[in-house]
Amino acid sequence: MNLLSIDELTDEQIERMLDRALVLHDQAGQPIGGLEGRIVFNLFYENSTRTLMSFATAAHRLGASAITMPVEQSSVNKGETLEDTARTLNAMRPDAVIIRHRENGAPGVVADIVDAPVINAGDGTNEHPTQALLDAATLLHHFGRIEGLTIAICGDIKHSRVARSNAKLLPRFGAKVRLAGPPELMPDGLPTLSVEEAVGGANVVMMLRVQRERLDQEFGDAPGEYLHSHGLTAARLALAAPDAVVMHPGPINRGVEIDSAVADDPQRSLITLQVAMGVALRMACLEQLLA
Amino acid sequence: MNLLSIDELTDEQIERMLDRALVLHDQAGQPIGGLEGRIVFNLFYENSTRTLMSFATAAHRLGASAITMPVEQSSVNKGETLEDTARTLNAMRPDAVIIRHRENGAPGVVADIVDAPVINAGDGTNEHPTQALLDAATLLHHFGRIEGLTIAICGDIKHSRVARSNAKLLPRFGAKVRLAGPPELMPDGLPTLSVEEAVGGANVVMMLRVQRERLDQEFGDAPGEYLHSHGLTAARLALAAPDAVVMHPGPINRGVEIDSAVADDPQRSLITLQVAMGVALRMACLEQLLA
Amino acid sequence: MNLLSIDELTDEQIERMLDRALVLHDQAGQPIGGLEGRIVFNLFYENSTRTLMSFATAAHRLGASAITMPVEQSSVNKGETLEDTARTLNAMRPDAVIIRHRENGAPGVVADIVDAPVINAGDGTNEHPTQALLDAATLLHHFGRIEGLTIAICGDIKHSRVARSNAKLLPRFGAKVRLAGPPELMPDGLPTLSVEEAVGGANVVMMLRVQRERLDQEFGDAPGEYLHSHGLTAARLALAAPDAVVMHPGPINRGVEIDSAVADDPQRSLITLQVAMGVALRMACLEQLLA
Repeated sequence: MNLLSIDELTDEQIERMLDRALVLHDQAGQPIGGLEGRIVFNLFYENSTRTLMSFATAAHRLGASAITMPVEQSSVNKGETLEDTARTLNAMRPDAVIIRHRENGAPGVVADIVDAPVINAGDGTNEHPTQALLDAATLLHHFGRIEGLTIAICGDIKHSRVARSNAKLLPRFGAKVRLAGPPELMPDGLPTLSVEEAVGGANVVMMLRVQRERLDQEFGDAPGEYLHSHGLTAARLALAAPDAVVMHPGPINRGVEIDSAVADDPQRSLITLQVAMGVALRMACLEQLLA
Repeated sequence: MNLLSIDELTDEQIERMLDRALVLHDQAGQPIGGLEGRIVFNLFYENSTRTLMSFATAAHRLGASAITMPVEQSSVNKGETLEDTARTLNAMRPDAVIIRHRENGAPGVVADIVDAPVINAGDGTNEHPTQALLDAATLLHHFGRIEGLTIAICGDIKHSRVARSNAKLLPRFGAKVRLAGPPELMPDGLPTLSVEEAVGGANVVMMLRVQRERLDQEFGDAPGEYLHSHGLTAARLALAAPDAVVMHPGPINRGVEIDSAVADDPQRSLITLQVAMGVALRMACLEQLLA
Repeated sequence: MNLLSIDELTDEQIERMLDRALVLHDQAGQPIGGLEGRIVFNLFYENSTRTLMSFATAAHRLGASAITMPVEQSSVNKGETLEDTARTLNAMRPDAVIIRHRENGAPGVVADIVDAPVINAGDGTNEHPTQALLDAATLLHHFGRIEGLTIAICGDIKHSRVARSNAKLLPRFGAKVRLAGPPELMPDGLPTLSVEEAVGGANVVMMLRVQRERLDQEFGDAPGEYLHSHGLTAARLALAAPDAVVMHPGPINRGVEIDSAVADDPQRSLITLQVAMGVALRMACLEQLLA
């Protein structure tokens, strides 16, 4: 069993993972064990701090060892194909392979070759399933339900694997997802909502990270301009439901897609809870896949 | 006891290591334990994916911890001599030190200083003893013997530590080794065989990785030219013994030193078996040296 | 409880840590255990080999796991603030955070946010408390006391966090500390001693690493010139007490701040003992902070 896309998981598998994540979150910071002697390979072809540290922490909490492949100095630079790297690593018989890659579908290429479970830790603009699962677990923890929630996801929808995985996952459990962003950053064929329209009455506002480099170059954006036009300010958040919460996959760009006061509001912001739930969810995921 | 060169090992030590590797290979993917609480330092001054991952996996399967020195940001860059780095690391009392270095003899320099066993994971153009040992274990696994086999090693013999270690090891156990490659890439004083001559009737064809950079710059090689003149094609492999197998230390250059169809032939190619045996052999090596 | 500065530790805490380090040093190279299942995060924003390896070795000897954050590829490069990184890592519930940072005070910023103990592994020109503690443990091991020793610390006093932490720690236990160096490298307001004056009659001569880059650029120093004017030669060491010993936090610049013969003198040099004691002291430190 792999975890490549939300689509491949049954409702029952997801529910089991979320339930277990909530239990493990209650025991956060404790060694749990169960996977002693198991080895997890981390293949991060794209930069990552939080996801890499989160998976490594999850593995170690379960008693497993995480071995991180040094990608910069890897055989990739000697012209080895991803398939050959996968064959090589598979021959070492890891108990799981976690892969992040800039190309859509790369985790599937690896999973076709590797006998052990393969976990997609983000592939290009395609999917980031453990992020969506941890977001769902965070919502369950806070609201006690996903059913009936209205969730506004705002920002660079076109390039966001987080948006994509959440847009697949959350509606399956009865949430209503609204996607909003600058017209240039919306996928073709989707109706363009303004942030105000998406946030209006929503229970959850999930802001996406904006690539500042892209903003500067493609939009000629002045400092503060994105926040003003499309970011989450206290004024915009006031349009949401009275009990609305704020989420963000991180790392946040303060003053760009989100105002600092909103990001830090202890009553509203679930951002650090998302990180904490990330470890618990990835532990549940490793347990389930390696069982 | 160190593992710096094939020459330093007795026949009995080698046989014990190979026998144990075959046993451990049968239990591949299982935690074995035995070295709990032991610490292995990885000092990789040259890029590596497979060897580094292989040693780390071997250490963890035995319950030991592998700590990889961050060479790019190490004291080397502050002008520290290798001797001083060795003195420093030795004072931390590791249970073993694994070193890869661009300079011939560097592992010996470290071994003269470090009290714990030192394992040469490849030094310049000199030796790569665990590669030769895993190649021998792979042959034993496949043929049940090394005695009497004819092994053609083809490619950049002059710069290959893999060829050098194998040319020392295999004849000690009764194999006949033939070395072949472009005249410019043969060591001085060796008779130059064509690939056809070396492969003719051989039981094993071991292709070496060609440095594409070197090809382009020094030989002005056009794409496909090396494969045509010196690479392993199905036609050339047909000159070998009917039961001949193909080996390669990896990473392979598809279409350069080896044709893809040959590399991937499940009846002929032992390339992924070599990687699997690499973990088993390095486990046996760590067990024996740290016992 | 954190370990940010020597000032924050009580005499009793320090004595307990030093005593325990001496006991652990007697068991150097042995697995000790006690922190099984615990997770230590290493955040090294500045290059380090010895300190990073030392802390990782200490953690593993105690049965804990050390997870090193890949700083070069971290969210720092995506513009994340240190505070946000600290919040994120804290949410993963590590058992301790070890931080080295180029800015003075950065460990305190992290400690204000992180619930687990934070250990300063060197911040800018401010402090490097575990280095001072391991130096004190080294002195205790060698002399059986700190009380009454005269310690000359020589070199780039102005920029040295090692000097700063030692100048705080050693006098608290009855040592007399003399600071000496080129006038340009002395802090404002300190009397400038020559190296000869500082070393005269001293029991301990602690040389600091000189930044060769700085020497070349700022002082237009010719090779050998620094050693001649301010380095530790056998002649200068002869001015010290008959039983005087030599220390250096490493990595040493042979022929710059210290003559090779002096650095390598087995009767006089405690440099490798410092490294060995570094592991023991950091084990004691982790034990005490995580207890």
